[in-house]
Amino acid sequence: MTEFRTPGNRFHSQDFTKPDGRPLTLYGLAPIAVTSEIPSPSPEAVDARPVMRWHPLRGEWVMYAAHRLGRTFLPPPEYNPLAPTSDPEHPTELPRGTYDIAVFANRFPSLTLTAPQPEPGPAGTRAGVGACEVVVFSQSAQGRLADLSEEQMALLIAVWADRTTRLAEGGTVRSVLAFENRGVEVGVTLHHPHGQLYAYDHVPPVQARMLEQAQRYHTEGGRPWLGDFVAEERAGGERVVLDDGLALSVVPPFARYTYETWVLPARPAARLSDLSADEQASLARVLKDALNRLDGLFGGRMPYLMTVHQAPLDGEYPEFPLHIELYPYLRAPGRMKYLAGTEQGAGEFANDKFPEVAARELKEVVL
Amino acid sequence: MTEFRTPGNRFHSQDFTKPDGRPLTLYGLAPIAVTSEIPSPSPEAVDARPVMRWHPLRGEWVMYAAHRLGRTFLPPPEYNPLAPTSDPEHPTELPRGTYDIAVFANRFPSLTLTAPQPEPGPAGTRAGVGACEVVVFSQSAQGRLADLSEEQMALLIAVWADRTTRLAEGGTVRSVLAFENRGVEVGVTLHHPHGQLYAYDHVPPVQARMLEQAQRYHTEGGRPWLGDFVAEERAGGERVVLDDGLALSVVPPFARYTYETWVLPARPAARLSDLSADEQASLARVLKDALNRLDGLFGGRMPYLMTVHQAPLDGEYPEFPLHIELYPYLRAPGRMKYLAGTEQGAGEFANDKFPEVAARELKEVVL
Repeated sequence: MTEFRTPGNRFHSQDFTKPDGRPLTLYGLAPIAVTSEIPSPSPEAVDARPVMRWHPLRGEWVMYAAHRLGRTFLPPPEYNPLAPTSDPEHPTELPRGTYDIAVFANRFPSLTLTAPQPEPGPAGTRAGVGACEVVVFSQSAQGRLADLSEEQMALLIAVWADRTTRLAEGGTVRSVLAFENRGVEVGVTLHHPHGQLYAYDHVPPVQARMLEQAQRYHTEGGRPWLGDFVAEERAGGERVVLDDGLALSVVPPFARYTYETWVLPARPAARLSDLSADEQASLARVLKDALNRLDGLFGGRMPYLMTVHQAPLDGEYPEFPLHIELYPYLRAPGRMKYLAGTEQGAGEFANDKFPEVAARELKEVVL
Repeated sequence: MTEFRTPGNRFHSQDFTKPDGRPLTLYGLAPIAVTSEIPSPSPEAVDARPVMRWHPLRGEWVMYAAHRLGRTFLPPPEYNPLAPTSDPEHPTELPRGTYDIAVFANRFPSLTLTAPQPEPGPAGTRAGVGACEVVVFSQSAQGRLADLSEEQMALLIAVWADRTTRLAEGGTVRSVLAFENRGVEVGVTLHHPHGQLYAYDHVPPVQARMLEQAQRYHTEGGRPWLGDFVAEERAGGERVVLDDGLALSVVPPFARYTYETWVLPARPAARLSDLSADEQASLARVLKDALNRLDGLFGGRMPYLMTVHQAPLDGEYPEFPLHIELYPYLRAPGRMKYLAGTEQGAGEFANDKFPEVAARELKEVVL
C-alpha cells in the first residue's frame, strides 16, 4: 500500500504491476480491495518506440508513435478494455474489486520513459521520452465524468495531483497535462469514462507561453495574474457561472470556444498539490457543476476537451495560474466548431458569440 | 480595368462594387466580360461590428463576430451564393460573364477595415480591424480546386499575390493568410470550390513564430532556412513527392498530420509576389499534383486545410520561408485526425505514421 499524499489523507490507493509489466494504481474513497487477478489485454508488452522530431518553423516537438495505428477503436459492447474483467478468458485492463479510479500506463503510448534511441533520422530526431497514462474515472461504463459524486470528483483532483507528483519524481518529466477528450464527434475511441495524462520531458509550447505571459504580468504589476483575474471577474460578475467560495467557474472574457468555461481556485496556486483539501473539494464541486451545465445546454452529451494546466515541474513557478479549461465543441445545437484557416494557419480563433452571452446561457441551464 | 501586377502580365482583372457597397474583383485568363448586373444576395450591407479581445495567457487575439451566427449554412442545391446569378430574383454573389476567379469581401466578416470602436468591455477589447475576403476558384459549383487547369491554378497563385499586395496598400494590414478549408467533415458550409483570405492588422502567432525561428536560423547559419530545407530534402529524396524543378512538394520530416504536404518554391522567397511567372507556374503544377494525390490516396475527396504562408507586410523579411501547407484530415480511410488533449492543451501533435512512409504512399498514388 503506497502512501497517497493527499491533503487530509482522506483517500486510499494501492500500486500493482500488470502481467505485461505496466504499472497500475487503484484509488478509492474506501480501502482498496482486489478480488481478481491483475489483468492485461495481452500478456506481451507493446514494443513502443516513440520518436520526437523538431518542427523548425513552429518551434515545437512532434511525436511519432508508429505502433499506435493498431490500437483499440470503438470496440463492440461485449469488449470494453476499461471495465473490470468479468471473463478471465478475455482480460481487460482492470481487475474486479473495491476502488473508484484507476490509473495505468497506456498500452500504446506516444511517449515512454524507456523510449530507445531511434535509428538515425532527419535533424532534430530523438527518443520520445515521457509518459502516457490512462485515468479511468469510474467502474461504470455508461456514466459520465459529471456523474461522479462530489467526493469521487474530489478524489479525481487528488489523483491528478498525485500522478503529477509521482511522474515528476525521476527528474525527467518537466510538465504534465491531464485531460479528457469526450464525444464520438471528436474521435473518442473508448466510451467508458476516462481521461489521460501526458508527461513531457520538456515544457510544451502552450505551458511555456502561459508561464512566460504570467511571469511578465507578475513582474510588471507585482501581483499574480490569477488573483487579479478572479477579483475582476467577481467584481463584474456577468461571466461568473458558479462561485463556490474557494473555487469558481467563469466564461473567460477572451473565450476561444463559444461556451468555453474555466474552473479556477479563488486563491492563486500553481499546481493541484498546492491546494488544501477544502480547496480541492470546492474545485471538484465547481467542475461537476460546469460539466453538468454543458450537457444541459442543448440537452445531450456535449463533446468537449478538458485540460488541466499546472506549472512546469523542474522548479518553482508561483506565477503559473493553475486552472482547468473546458472546450465545448458545439457552438449551437448540432453545430460543431471546427478549427479552420485562421485557427490552424494563424493561431487565432474566431468566435460567433460574446462570452457574456454564453455565460448567461450557462447560468440559465436548469440542473 | 485595374492594373493587375502579375509577372509577365499574362492575366486580366477588373474591379466592381456590389449593390451593398462591397468590392468585387474578377480575374481571368481572357479579358473580363460581364453580361449581367453585379449582384449581392441582399441590397443592404451587413452591420459588421467585429471585436478583438486579448487572451492574456496564450498571448493572442480572439475575434468576436456576433453577426456571423446567421450566415449561410449548407443551402439547398437551388441556392448557391457562389454561382453566377441565373435568376435575378435570387441574386447570388457573382454575375454572369467571362472570368475564372472572383474575389469579394465576405458578407459576414470576422475582421473589417471599418470596424467601429466597440463599447467599453473587458481589458484588452478593441475593434476587429482587418479584412476577410472570399476567393471563388471557378464558376463551376461541382468541381474541386484540383480540377483547375494548370493555367487557372497559376492564375490563382497570381490572385493570392495580388490580393496580398492590395490588402497591404493602406498600411493597416500586417499579415495575410490565404486558405481553403474543404470537406463537410470539417464544417465547410458552401461546397462551391472557394477559399478565403484573412488580413490581420498585426502578425498572428503562427507567422510571428515562423519568422522568429527562420530569422534565428538565418542569423546562426548565415543561410535562409528554406534553401537548406529544399537542398536536404532533395539530397535525401525519400520525402519528396514531386520535384518540378522550380517548385516541389514534400512530406516534411516533422509532419504533424499523417499526409501533411508542403508545396514550396525551390528558390527561397518570402512572398508569392517574389516569384517569377515561371516559378508561379511551377508552384501551381506542384500544388495541383499534391491535391490530386490526396484525393487519390483513399479514392475520395480528402477533407483538408490548405494555408499559404507569406512574410509579414510591414517590412522586408527575406528570411521568411514562403510555402503552402496542406493538412489532410484523414489518417486512414474513414479515420479522421482530431486535435485532442496534447494538440490543443499542450500545442504538440501526435502522429501515427512516419513522414517517410506517408510520402511513399503519396508517391505511389496512380493519377
